[in-house]
Amino acid sequence: LRSRMELLIMETQAEMCRALTALDPGASFAVDSWERKEGGGGISCVLQDGEVFEKAGVNVSVVSGLLSEEAARQMRSRGKSLKAKDGKLPFCAMGVSSVIHPKNPHVPTMHFNYRYFEIEEADGTKQWWFGGGTDLTPTYLNEEDAVHFHKTLKEACDKHDPKLYPKYKKWCDDYFYIKHRGERRGIGGIFFDDMDSPSKEEVFQFVKSCAKAVVPCYIPIVKKHCHDSFTPEEKLWQQLRRGRYVEFNLVYDRGTKFGLLTPGSRIESILMSLPLTARWEYMHTPLESSKEAEILEVLRNPKDWVH
Amino acid sequence: LRSRMELLIMETQAEMCRALTALDPGASFAVDSWERKEGGGGISCVLQDGEVFEKAGVNVSVVSGLLSEEAARQMRSRGKSLKAKDGKLPFCAMGVSSVIHPKNPHVPTMHFNYRYFEIEEADGTKQWWFGGGTDLTPTYLNEEDAVHFHKTLKEACDKHDPKLYPKYKKWCDDYFYIKHRGERRGIGGIFFDDMDSPSKEEVFQFVKSCAKAVVPCYIPIVKKHCHDSFTPEEKLWQQLRRGRYVEFNLVYDRGTKFGLLTPGSRIESILMSLPLTARWEYMHTPLESSKEAEILEVLRNPKDWVH
Repeated sequence: LRSRMELLIMETQAEMCRALTALDPGASFAVDSWERKEGGGGISCVLQDGEVFEKAGVNVSVVSGLLSEEAARQMRSRGKSLKAKDGKLPFCAMGVSSVIHPKNPHVPTMHFNYRYFEIEEADGTKQWWFGGGTDLTPTYLNEEDAVHFHKTLKEACDKHDPKLYPKYKKWCDDYFYIKHRGERRGIGGIFFDDMDSPSKEEVFQFVKSCAKAVVPCYIPIVKKHCHDSFTPEEKLWQQLRRGRYVEFNLVYDRGTKFGLLTPGSRIESILMSLPLTARWEYMHTPLESSKEAEILEVLRNPKDWVH
Repeated sequence: LRSRMELLIMETQAEMCRALTALDPGASFAVDSWERKEGGGGISCVLQDGEVFEKAGVNVSVVSGLLSEEAARQMRSRGKSLKAKDGKLPFCAMGVSSVIHPKNPHVPTMHFNYRYFEIEEADGTKQWWFGGGTDLTPTYLNEEDAVHFHKTLKEACDKHDPKLYPKYKKWCDDYFYIKHRGERRGIGGIFFDDMDSPSKEEVFQFVKSCAKAVVPCYIPIVKKHCHDSFTPEEKLWQQLRRGRYVEFNLVYDRGTKFGLLTPGSRIESILMSLPLTARWEYMHTPLESSKEAEILEVLRNPKDWVH
């Protein structure tokens, strides 16, 4: 299964990069492969300052080695019992992750991440789990787009179990919460972690469906809006929302915090998720009943987009 | 002493706002006073998008109430023994803090903060301490400015004890460290916390000297460079350095993290420290021997500016 998951993350990266290049043919991806001296490595594909995309990164990594004390503590705090042999926990982690920040404020930002984790305990038994998710962060609300995005994800989930979408939709709203602002980062999608049942094969098939839904849930939205006209005021609001994106990623995101704390991790690939530009204005408050207030309302009180 | 410290922080705010207004007469300070329902309040003065300053905030607050469990834990982890009465610790905290982000990349960003803390323990004894510091974050290195800045701070410290400047200079370099980048936020200054000896009066006099040095250490540098010409490339480098400023403040700064975790704290005043605009480019590396590489070298290996 390890190698099938490896194949899936490589394919997902390639598909996404192909779809982005087709929409922004003038821009080119910088492709960097890197190695981690503790074991493993990855490939980062980053497009910067294109016509359609301000910054788009698609990253895969396959790393193995011994779990750091810090990482083990974080996992135990999530309820895992990990029995170490001489304090050592061999692990293998692989995943694909991506953040797409478009230029046009009418095209939303999108993020996805699918990953697999394996740990070998003292007695030789292996713990494993999958995690991941796909979520959307619009600058302005477009209900039709929101419905398309959630519906595509729901269909991918429903093929496996109708209970999954409602559960992971809620988990997503709860996870991408900027507590000090009382706002979610975006209009959600799905998010899950520590998924280890019903069986390795079935969870893999579920993750595969989710990964295959990444392009169809997002790319049509980009196509639809990437030539929409916009005003300087709309661009400004986008920049302020980018500021919130930075706040979530640096203050709350588990993956980012974990990466910054892990020795030998590749900082440039972790912080690839940050937008090219962002803005913070003191006491910025949108006018009542404005389009800016409309999206804020949904970020404060998440909606059900599909039922 | 409480009321003399309160007076000092108000005076420092007024002096700084006066000095900034004199340099940027077209801009006006938004002045907001706010109350905290748990007790106390503050006054935030913020100038945004002026001619000389991109964003400048000077904030005072005087708050009292009962210490949150989270805050008490953080203080104990710093080595304080706090004996609570029925789990309750009445406290009083006051301080002045400021971050000045100028427009011109040849004018450095400056930050200072001076504060006083008092906690009443179960047996009625009061613990108290002062903390604070002043530090400079240039986009480009100007040795003359760096020496002027550090020398002014050293003179303020030396009046009280010649051991203070070297100790607090090092503390500053250690504190403003962006670990995942291997860089300091800026070229330092002074930083101290938990200062409770030799006596309350003597520490107050020291803090007063430091607060009085804020305007003379910084304002001459602004005057000298605020009309310097600059290129778009220099402005871009400034924006990338602003990105690092955001990284430090959101990931490491104790004050910011404490504020974001404290219920009832005023988010807009805490995040006032963030620049108006910032930028993140994937894998940006300055050319060897460039002016950009020169400042990076000093951020990686702090220098002694005065001896």
